[in-house]
Amino acid sequence: MREVQIECGYLESNPASILYRSGKTIVLCTASVESNVPPWMVGRGKGWVTAEYNMLPGSTSPRKRRERGGKIDGRTTEIQRLIGRSLRAVVNLEALGERSITVDCDVLQADGGTRTASITGGFIALSLAIANLAANPDPDPEAKPVVVADVLPRSVAAVSVGVIDDAVVLDLDYVLDSAADVDMNVIMTGDGRFIEIQGTGEEATFDDEQLAQMLRLAKKGIGELTELQKKAIG
Amino acid sequence: MREVQIECGYLESNPASILYRSGKTIVLCTASVESNVPPWMVGRGKGWVTAEYNMLPGSTSPRKRRERGGKIDGRTTEIQRLIGRSLRAVVNLEALGERSITVDCDVLQADGGTRTASITGGFIALSLAIANLAANPDPDPEAKPVVVADVLPRSVAAVSVGVIDDAVVLDLDYVLDSAADVDMNVIMTGDGRFIEIQGTGEEATFDDEQLAQMLRLAKKGIGELTELQKKAIG
Amino acid sequence: MREVQIECGYLESNPASILYRSGKTIVLCTASVESNVPPWMVGRGKGWVTAEYNMLPGSTSPRKRRERGGKIDGRTTEIQRLIGRSLRAVVNLEALGERSITVDCDVLQADGGTRTASITGGFIALSLAIANLAANPDPDPEAKPVVVADVLPRSVAAVSVGVIDDAVVLDLDYVLDSAADVDMNVIMTGDGRFIEIQGTGEEATFDDEQLAQMLRLAKKGIGELTELQKKAIG
Amino acid sequence: MREVQIECGYLESNPASILYRSGKTIVLCTASVESNVPPWMVGRGKGWVTAEYNMLPGSTSPRKRRERGGKIDGRTTEIQRLIGRSLRAVVNLEALGERSITVDCDVLQADGGTRTASITGGFIALSLAIANLAANPDPDPEAKPVVVADVLPRSVAAVSVGVIDDAVVLDLDYVLDSAADVDMNVIMTGDGRFIEIQGTGEEATFDDEQLAQMLRLAKKGIGELTELQKKAIG
Amino acid sequence: MREVQIECGYLESNPASILYRSGKTIVLCTASVESNVPPWMVGRGKGWVTAEYNMLPGSTSPRKRRERGGKIDGRTTEIQRLIGRSLRAVVNLEALGERSITVDCDVLQADGGTRTASITGGFIALSLAIANLAANPDPDPEAKPVVVADVLPRSVAAVSVGVIDDAVVLDLDYVLDSAADVDMNVIMTGDGRFIEIQGTGEEATFDDEQLAQMLRLAKKGIGELTELQKKAIG
Amino acid sequence: MREVQIECGYLESNPASILYRSGKTIVLCTASVESNVPPWMVGRGKGWVTAEYNMLPGSTSPRKRRERGGKIDGRTTEIQRLIGRSLRAVVNLEALGERSITVDCDVLQADGGTRTASITGGFIALSLAIANLAANPDPDPEAKPVVVADVLPRSVAAVSVGVIDDAVVLDLDYVLDSAADVDMNVIMTGDGRFIEIQGTGEEATFDDEQLAQMLRLAKKGIGELTELQKKAIG
Repeated sequence: MREVQIECGYLESNPASILYRSGKTIVLCTASVESNVPPWMVGRGKGWVTAEYNMLPGSTSPRKRRERGGKIDGRTTEIQRLIGRSLRAVVNLEALGERSITVDCDVLQADGGTRTASITGGFIALSLAIANLAANPDPDPEAKPVVVADVLPRSVAAVSVGVIDDAVVLDLDYVLDSAADVDMNVIMTGDGRFIEIQGTGEEATFDDEQLAQMLRLAKKGIGELTELQKKAIG
Repeated sequence: MREVQIECGYLESNPASILYRSGKTIVLCTASVESNVPPWMVGRGKGWVTAEYNMLPGSTSPRKRRERGGKIDGRTTEIQRLIGRSLRAVVNLEALGERSITVDCDVLQADGGTRTASITGGFIALSLAIANLAANPDPDPEAKPVVVADVLPRSVAAVSVGVIDDAVVLDLDYVLDSAADVDMNVIMTGDGRFIEIQGTGEEATFDDEQLAQMLRLAKKGIGELTELQKKAIG
Repeated sequence: MREVQIECGYLESNPASILYRSGKTIVLCTASVESNVPPWMVGRGKGWVTAEYNMLPGSTSPRKRRERGGKIDGRTTEIQRLIGRSLRAVVNLEALGERSITVDCDVLQADGGTRTASITGGFIALSLAIANLAANPDPDPEAKPVVVADVLPRSVAAVSVGVIDDAVVLDLDYVLDSAADVDMNVIMTGDGRFIEIQGTGEEATFDDEQLAQMLRLAKKGIGELTELQKKAIG
Repeated sequence: MREVQIECGYLESNPASILYRSGKTIVLCTASVESNVPPWMVGRGKGWVTAEYNMLPGSTSPRKRRERGGKIDGRTTEIQRLIGRSLRAVVNLEALGERSITVDCDVLQADGGTRTASITGGFIALSLAIANLAANPDPDPEAKPVVVADVLPRSVAAVSVGVIDDAVVLDLDYVLDSAADVDMNVIMTGDGRFIEIQGTGEEATFDDEQLAQMLRLAKKGIGELTELQKKAIG
Repeated sequence: MREVQIECGYLESNPASILYRSGKTIVLCTASVESNVPPWMVGRGKGWVTAEYNMLPGSTSPRKRRERGGKIDGRTTEIQRLIGRSLRAVVNLEALGERSITVDCDVLQADGGTRTASITGGFIALSLAIANLAANPDPDPEAKPVVVADVLPRSVAAVSVGVIDDAVVLDLDYVLDSAADVDMNVIMTGDGRFIEIQGTGEEATFDDEQLAQMLRLAKKGIGELTELQKKAIG
Repeated sequence: MREVQIECGYLESNPASILYRSGKTIVLCTASVESNVPPWMVGRGKGWVTAEYNMLPGSTSPRKRRERGGKIDGRTTEIQRLIGRSLRAVVNLEALGERSITVDCDVLQADGGTRTASITGGFIALSLAIANLAANPDPDPEAKPVVVADVLPRSVAAVSVGVIDDAVVLDLDYVLDSAADVDMNVIMTGDGRFIEIQGTGEEATFDDEQLAQMLRLAKKGIGELTELQKKAIG
């Protein structure tokens, strides 16, 4: 697995911001809190967590065209829905109260694994935002007090695995990802349960044995990432 | 598994059209062939297969707002990308020659499992279109002749499985799907290899044992669907 | 005039759904009721009826591009405005109370006359929806009770007529429509009064005598359609 | 019928521009020529004529929202399609050669009858543009020479008629139009043949006798407009 | 400086409308009042003034494509923001009360200087609208009474200056503007203070001395325009 | 003036990338080269330089909504047009040959002065890209060789100045900018000539003396920035 570096509080404007590096992949994750929820959730006493994912034009070579002033690319939509779903899976929305948290994952440099880095890093930004809410109680007496352990009873991390020439490989960078016959993203809780599995044969197929090997390797990787997350959050 | 009914040649305007019913879910699948490929594929001697998915407004109660004159919903984008990817996984694009096939999956009535029905039914429409190409050779002497077994060496079918109150369930209709803790779509070839697995815990998680049970059940269902596909195509 | 077949209650999800066939033209008409009105009508004690028209991609050969993710075609806009206007002309909106009905006309197969089929079939779906409202009174004591004869005092049907090589022709299919010099859509009530006349010389013109002949023929056709509507609604 | 005033050559930038006033309705009509045709018409030796219609924000009180940066209103689309169709009906596109003419109809002040004023005035602008093409032959020896009488063998004018309280009325201004039970636009050639008839009962219906009266009145009005057009074009 | 002609009350539909001509440039300016403010300003007791700028298709030769049904051009956005900002700079929004005024500047013919003509002419339309508000008090007793001198304590006018072949030139028409190395728009109050300066070297640069000369010339021109405005408003 | 820090080669994916900090404002500038020009410039032997500006959602507190899937904000359009114009003013497009350079300015943290930082930093990224082109000649023998001094004969830098309570201030951060009565952006070449001046009184006006003071201060600041640019480029 590639080396991971985590810089918490990267932006002064928002303490719940981190710069997450996994090898050459760099993602800026920021969690922003609002003290209201989308219209369709008002009055249910629950909060909401959503995510937005974006690759900066300079993150790839050749330059990636900016998604702006028109339709959002299908790939972008899929990825940000996955990040949001994965984060919500470990949040107790009732304990959050009627607040919204948006986790922005902006990819500064892309070298494979940007969606799994966004989930793993996004969870850290989310944790910092919730810790911040707990440390700075809302002066409004009607606002629900935040208890970190209630809102975030579990952690989440993600990693990619794949099959290249019949060998099973962990944490694919761009070169490996391009060569992979099968590509799988595994998202798990810190205590080893599955949140989501997405495995795709790219013009190829895979069998039970390969699936089992990929899942074993993914679990190992997620275990390591969970340790790094704990250290970063402190 | 719900009863499946397949009506081939449903539209006179296009023999590669089927009405696919799985319980109360009804999908009209049509495969349309064009004798050219998208600009980015010209001159590579390969064909292209893509899919579009749509739910008609009357397919649900209450009425579903028409996706038109604006952004396409993220869910729709995800589903039609999945259908296209799954179909391409069993097509030999070189053997197809420089032709494009669009598989339209229009849901007339939705009662759960519309994406898996679209893949299973879409494959039948695709097969009919390719058989049609083989039976009616292109008068253009430069056009690549179509051999069905070369273009479509395998078949593909899809089914959903889930976990409801710790029980593993096959082929979820709308009521079951709403109750499911875990929802998984499994897409496999007719000879039993995985093309894609997408399993999601909806505010829940799952463990290895549940995953294994879901995959066993999915394989059984896909075996049955493969038989029905063979009968329909003849 | 081409043979008309009407299948009421085609979708289990909505009893106010019909499959309307006129020759090879097939339109699925569904009427969906909501218990509120658009913002600009609130508080006026009146209801609203609107229509949406759409051709499915497989309805024509070659395939029709899906109108989605962008601008709606001018032809589509014109047709659905015409359908809505024609249906509203026979509805007493005060008697409907503050309810909205959307009539969706989705063309499964197009062989000419889709707009007139949508009006004639759409009226049947609308009638079924209103009969349904009368048969199942709203539990809300403030909701206006629905009396079918008050809400729908008249019926509406539509037919096309045209001039081909100086001969006047009724109910043009695609081949005839392409050959026509003059094309006219006539929309009338069941008791023989005009609701709308739209006659266009396509790179041609017409005189008083031809106009008179076309109107006579249209009246005859609409008389027959009115009988079929009565039978279908029962 | 309201008084009509026509100011030819209103803009110095384009001699084929007129300011057309009918009562308080003011429309600026400009015909712009390009020496090519839309992609789908190239190489067929024919020209193209199209129209665009727009109401300026200050043309009504209260102010009309500008149609910009989003969807075009259905009413606008319908009107500009009608203007284009009506003008093309009197143009010999083969005699025009591979040229495009866009007739812009910008409503400076709206007091009813803007669509019929746009057709009647738009024809004058179109005539001026074609006369201009004939007077200033294209230096390109391959360009088709323009002969006015060949390109424009007929003229076109339009007028509205309606039924108000059972009386038939010619040329409705805004107040009359709002009161009308039936509203009909009649578009005819200068020699008295129909190009298009669009009659609509607004929450009302009409019978054969009323239709006949409206058409008689419309013919009379169009006769007068045709004379005014002749004078303006000279 | 080119000759300026101002026709107040050009449209009967809105007395606060003027036709402003500066040489061959013709702009129709209309000021429309609404008795409410945008949502983000409600309840602050202040009014709002905004502007929209548009060039009609026939205003240039060749024809300018209509900005409709899509993105607004960057140039248009910049210009209408500038007009709005310049007008707001001389309005006391508190004295206006909770009303909105939209100043529409539609260019009928463009021969350079359309943005400065829009500001100078737009101010006249705005003055007429405010005079009209003062002359016709709102019957609503809660509406703030309008006192012209309080709402509009100053006037605003604008002119362009430039450098062509090292000579400083006032009020550039299209030909001069195309030849200019430096182009500067100066917006000043009637009593000689700067509201906005926008100077741009088009593939050229300028020095302090040239800047000083341009500003002197601009002041002279704005003095003359201020006199013309006073006469027009009366 | 705030302290400026420049980190060249910030992204491994593109050596022409810099992280530019001015106080708390952080902008990532990347210059990407393509070996072709926009369609409207092909065949003229000239290159093109353009810029895109974007604020990341986490760059401000509260979070800035992402400009995506719809219209681009007018402010963004204005700023990126200004950056592009300013950079092109110092580039010899003929000497660049038929190549396009896009300078992306993504604001990671915004504390005032993001547009001037984007110009000053964008010039450095542009210089690095051109140096890179010179150091790595295009293998295509028809490609124009790049000579840095020919393509970039001058440098450009920008700074803001303003008037707060009658005092003239250099390089406004967010707090100062909000308090300023007058806000002016000055863009100059390294040898002290003006490229662009944009001065705006925000609900205020300014006189000749204040203008002169602001320009003096701006020149001093730009002199310092020019030195920092030289050091960074080396």
